[in-house]
Amino acid sequence: MKIAVVAPSCPLKPEAAERVQAIVADRGDCELVIHPQCFLTDGHFAGSDHVRLAALREVMADSTIDAVWFARGGYGSNRIAEAAMNGLPDAARSKTYLGYSDAGFLHAGFHKVGLNVVWGPMPQDALRGDHGLDQGEDAVRRALDWLVRRDISALEPELRQPAMAFNLTVLSNLLGTPLEPDFSGVDLLIEEVSEEHYRIDRTMFHMTASENVRRVARIRLGRVGAIPANDPDFARDEAQIVEEWCLRAGMTYGGRADIGHDAGNRVVPFGGP
Amino acid sequence: MKIAVVAPSCPLKPEAAERVQAIVADRGDCELVIHPQCFLTDGHFAGSDHVRLAALREVMADSTIDAVWFARGGYGSNRIAEAAMNGLPDAARSKTYLGYSDAGFLHAGFHKVGLNVVWGPMPQDALRGDHGLDQGEDAVRRALDWLVRRDISALEPELRQPAMAFNLTVLSNLLGTPLEPDFSGVDLLIEEVSEEHYRIDRTMFHMTASENVRRVARIRLGRVGAIPANDPDFARDEAQIVEEWCLRAGMTYGGRADIGHDAGNRVVPFGGP
Repeated sequence: MKIAVVAPSCPLKPEAAERVQAIVADRGDCELVIHPQCFLTDGHFAGSDHVRLAALREVMADSTIDAVWFARGGYGSNRIAEAAMNGLPDAARSKTYLGYSDAGFLHAGFHKVGLNVVWGPMPQDALRGDHGLDQGEDAVRRALDWLVRRDISALEPELRQPAMAFNLTVLSNLLGTPLEPDFSGVDLLIEEVSEEHYRIDRTMFHMTASENVRRVARIRLGRVGAIPANDPDFARDEAQIVEEWCLRAGMTYGGRADIGHDAGNRVVPFGGP
Repeated sequence: MKIAVVAPSCPLKPEAAERVQAIVADRGDCELVIHPQCFLTDGHFAGSDHVRLAALREVMADSTIDAVWFARGGYGSNRIAEAAMNGLPDAARSKTYLGYSDAGFLHAGFHKVGLNVVWGPMPQDALRGDHGLDQGEDAVRRALDWLVRRDISALEPELRQPAMAFNLTVLSNLLGTPLEPDFSGVDLLIEEVSEEHYRIDRTMFHMTASENVRRVARIRLGRVGAIPANDPDFARDEAQIVEEWCLRAGMTYGGRADIGHDAGNRVVPFGGP
């Protein structure tokens, strides 16, 4: 299996790339091609929109590549996602696209046009030190276990298919755009990071007002990390917030899910395991 | 003129209420009734949803009241806005509704059902100390000048009617909800506070994807205050961001507007001056 890494959002840290290459060398069951675009910088982004889109299109069109792994999140994939959905080369259809966080803009649009997208850890996660794991390298191994061997132990354990997983803020910001997929019957997993409780409440208001989102089978809540303190305190936690908005919208709240912006983040294939 | 103050979002500070009452006493051209609900606290909010909605409905139904002034922003009016739009009493239709920031959720829904809504300073602004003014009291006087005397010097100076003004994040979060008004032909003024440049870019992506928003006459950008530093720096300022997304969406960018989360904030009647 040949895996290409590109960065549609922010640049990949070289030390993360080194660690992931070491993990791949140790495994010996796949080849990793880290596109030089991953290390470019143009303001906030890993190269200009044009450069990021060109790298993405290049690996999508390469028939020798089996999987496209998004290097990291941050911000910026929304700026090129609609262009990347259009005029798909045939070779784009036989690959798996893996990532999470800001990559959700690509996941949404790519799923909509029939590509095989998967939520899961990314190369930059190699640098994480949470969850008592070895600096996030276990997260990277988990992603590779899924990509290379379709190892079901990498999966979020209570998935029902069809499933989708999104960062809540990313999902809110793609509603009403050309990237919005059909949510009918979907096991929708959401997670959040670095947003105050009041913002989570506001985003849930927005998301659950969508007639499309209301057609999901159920909403499940992953971890909500690094919530900034707010004055006044919101007095309700994230599970209470999500459950209330599900109730208001007549949606099923399916409890917690094992995903998040952390080293424990698990794999969620959109199309099925 | 009798003006009622209610707090559909967060509680009003008593010292702000005192200052505004002193300004009103000094003017002698209006009566201000500050509803006791303004000082209640229930977690983040000025009372529970039920209590805030009841106070709002009470003043909307009171035929002796000429204007409803929202005490302050914060967060929470979206939680009661749809209920407040429904079953409108006749007395609600002869009033002016004034506020900004989080009150935009009410403005959107109320404008949609034909009420007379106006963007402008709120009682809590009496405590502001920016713009070289006397602690925001000039902002409060400006709002009262419009409410009581329809003083055109309070207006945003380059308005074309019909106009609307919204906090960008509030506007983004009401798209696709029952509160979303018709933007056709509108001079749409937006402003922002405490959002990083990358978030402003992401929200502009979301907002300008809306076919409804694309029908505005033009987008004008108010002040964008208290932008948190971000690593990496976004390398583009707010005007460049807004102008780029207008260009991408085929919308007219009409330049800067004299509104914002500050003491210089001016008045924007949605229906016309």
